[in-house]
Amino acid sequence: MAKGFRGKRKRDDAAVRVDLNGATDALVGAEAGISQAELDGLRPRLESAIAALQAEREQGLRPFLELPFQRDDLAETLALAERLRPTADWFVMLGVGGSALGARTLAGMLGERGPRAGAGRSELIVVDNIDPSTLSAVLERIDLRRAIFNVVTRSGETAETMAQFLVVRELLLREFGAVDYTKHLLITTDADSGSMRQIVNDEGFFATAYPSGVPGHFSILTAVHLLPAALLDIDVEGLLSGAAAMAERCAAPDPDANPAARLAGARYLLDTLHGVQVAVLMPYSDRLAPLAEWWRQLWAESLGKRAERDGAQIAVGQTPVPALGATDQHSQLQLYLDGPADKVITFLRVEDHGARLEIPRSYPDIDDVGYLGGHSLGELLNIEQRATELALAKRSRPTITIEVPEVSPFCVGQLLYLLEVEAALTAALYGVDPYRQPGVDEVKRLACGLGGKPGFEDERREMERWLGAKQMRYLT
Amino acid sequence: MAKGFRGKRKRDDAAVRVDLNGATDALVGAEAGISQAELDGLRPRLESAIAALQAEREQGLRPFLELPFQRDDLAETLALAERLRPTADWFVMLGVGGSALGARTLAGMLGERGPRAGAGRSELIVVDNIDPSTLSAVLERIDLRRAIFNVVTRSGETAETMAQFLVVRELLLREFGAVDYTKHLLITTDADSGSMRQIVNDEGFFATAYPSGVPGHFSILTAVHLLPAALLDIDVEGLLSGAAAMAERCAAPDPDANPAARLAGARYLLDTLHGVQVAVLMPYSDRLAPLAEWWRQLWAESLGKRAERDGAQIAVGQTPVPALGATDQHSQLQLYLDGPADKVITFLRVEDHGARLEIPRSYPDIDDVGYLGGHSLGELLNIEQRATELALAKRSRPTITIEVPEVSPFCVGQLLYLLEVEAALTAALYGVDPYRQPGVDEVKRLACGLGGKPGFEDERREMERWLGAKQMRYLT
Repeated sequence: MAKGFRGKRKRDDAAVRVDLNGATDALVGAEAGISQAELDGLRPRLESAIAALQAEREQGLRPFLELPFQRDDLAETLALAERLRPTADWFVMLGVGGSALGARTLAGMLGERGPRAGAGRSELIVVDNIDPSTLSAVLERIDLRRAIFNVVTRSGETAETMAQFLVVRELLLREFGAVDYTKHLLITTDADSGSMRQIVNDEGFFATAYPSGVPGHFSILTAVHLLPAALLDIDVEGLLSGAAAMAERCAAPDPDANPAARLAGARYLLDTLHGVQVAVLMPYSDRLAPLAEWWRQLWAESLGKRAERDGAQIAVGQTPVPALGATDQHSQLQLYLDGPADKVITFLRVEDHGARLEIPRSYPDIDDVGYLGGHSLGELLNIEQRATELALAKRSRPTITIEVPEVSPFCVGQLLYLLEVEAALTAALYGVDPYRQPGVDEVKRLACGLGGKPGFEDERREMERWLGAKQMRYLT
Repeated sequence: MAKGFRGKRKRDDAAVRVDLNGATDALVGAEAGISQAELDGLRPRLESAIAALQAEREQGLRPFLELPFQRDDLAETLALAERLRPTADWFVMLGVGGSALGARTLAGMLGERGPRAGAGRSELIVVDNIDPSTLSAVLERIDLRRAIFNVVTRSGETAETMAQFLVVRELLLREFGAVDYTKHLLITTDADSGSMRQIVNDEGFFATAYPSGVPGHFSILTAVHLLPAALLDIDVEGLLSGAAAMAERCAAPDPDANPAARLAGARYLLDTLHGVQVAVLMPYSDRLAPLAEWWRQLWAESLGKRAERDGAQIAVGQTPVPALGATDQHSQLQLYLDGPADKVITFLRVEDHGARLEIPRSYPDIDDVGYLGGHSLGELLNIEQRATELALAKRSRPTITIEVPEVSPFCVGQLLYLLEVEAALTAALYGVDPYRQPGVDEVKRLACGLGGKPGFEDERREMERWLGAKQMRYLT
């Protein structure tokens, strides 16, 4: 297991906690902050949302909520990782969106840092775009003989992933010939249907099943992402244990005792009653920075929707913005402090940063540095977080603090599950379906049109009209 | 020079252009789009803003505008890079905000990808946070004997940078002794004043001067960042030539002929007349992704301010959001399409992506992939951009497209200068000072208080009161 990234605490001491105080009227004033009366008013709706989600779960409709408990699947994933390990110096994932983000996030948070390929150690490369300069650079850098390409697409309809697959397949075919090239491909796709399943069956590729009923943006705890995590020696058992511990707390019917409901309620009230349209997630920890990027997808795809209100359609969804403390104090904080009062900053505050680096007392007589001596870097990071929290409060800007004992698999598992359940409950409050993305279907159709896919001739003409309508007048 | 990243076009064909059509009422409707009348109405104010900026420039008050023309400084920087190169397998920058972001951005856009340290080649590592796990990992990974640490702080007051410096200095002292350790340190700080200058003078460190009068968020074209760029074999001359070409266009007094004024006017009108509070910058190019991160700082620190309006103070500043095409079509696009109509998406569209990867016609009879064959990956990427643009327009969401012929130093130089001048002009339209960050001073004072810096006892008590006021009641 990766040294230093296993949890060191007893699990009772390692509970992630949600602190709403900085978002309350008592601390940031009645205009900006939520009141106990507002929380009380929302209580029945939150209770219903919790109950409805648990009912859906019991009916088997929300398999993402069960992922922490699927230990048989886990054993299978770990066994596959051990089988792949000897030949997978590089494990290259080809996918996009939810098919790529989970693995990238787990690797970024819990994987060892720096290159690691070779000697039974796998390095993960996630290619989640179709920029030819990126794929070329990857293909130049790795030794194809020691690489496995994991193509992840539920349907086989995702143009980006299929294009990557076609390019890589051709290269492997040229390099290794028609018999051996399949050894370098692992396909993850729907068990029964879709173009990719058809190709798998025709070609005899080795394939694993994309878990059914789990939307991409809720998929981080599926085998799709646990497999590469296991290859990176991440303690996936600890990760799932953390998620399971949080699952229990997030099933609590009392919203005040349910951390996901607390978080959902606070951000919803801030949006609907206090004009907060931007939700910033700001870990004070480099290793948690990828979490904010992952959450950004979860939040946007779950909540950026049209909702019905009194027969009319309204558009909902706060804009999720990832930030990083202390770094972004020197980038975004000026805006958060003095710009429009339309943001809630949610901090992730890590109690124990693991590595301990003391600041030496080298120049005791120079004021600007003398006081730093004797603190550790981790302490200084947490001091900066508190200073930012208070400065925002003094300007009546609401903040929420999620307290994270340490960046361990157990704590990360809690965070992932917490934010997933929060997204589901928030969607219920807004009255939108968090699991589907109706908006992006049109983009896919238009791209098919411009790409010349048969059956999309109308979309092609529509694209041509659009390009014709753009007037040169506004081109400078 | 890094192969493939030099510009291949004649410079006349390599002009970056701003296309506002997708943000006009003709294409997205009168409610969402800007009209010619609105542009005409803004014209006098834009003319004044351009004239004022050029007047300030002539008075020597805006040295950042002159950076593309300082060829003597460039020669000095290139000479220093050549001197450092043989001993700097790793060039580690310790800094934060504007002291780090420029180098990181240039390296990300124009540097070769993948590890490169060794054999006269330098690898850049930018440490811009005080997370001990990051600094530990860096110090473990590199060979200190072949490393140079560049500490960048204008004043020596920045706690984060000074803390990093103290930790690294102690380590070098232990490793190399009091005589030799200074060889591994290069200090960049104010030429005359500040704690860091005092330390440099006392210890005899090798130091370069932080360019005076250039704010951190406008510093990317200074020697602070060109030095590491040169060490990475980036064509900094081409970069400055691009910036110089754009400088000429951005000095045009006619707003319609001035690409920075066009961009500034459009985003300002969208904010003030059409409710657009979120500005998304979405390159369809992995190599331009770092540009969006850099711009995010430029935009937030320049515009997130309090402005005077009729004697009262109002808060201004759109929230800058970086995104990446096509990747974020599978993350943020659902929100952009169906969520609140409070965003303008500015695309960076690259005509020639450099590396050419053809998609083979491997499965002509399978509809989902057959049509992809024969396109290149770069073409597909640009098809996705067009489809996204049109889908947004169909929902009356305004877009701007910045056309970028290729990701070359010449084009990147144009983009950097364009966005800097846009920020300066936009600040003039809002009536704010783009060059200062009054808000963050308070955070620094509060952090000094909690850190125990002498003279900040009031701030310390204020922090203690805040922590006492947070009630356990809202902790779940």
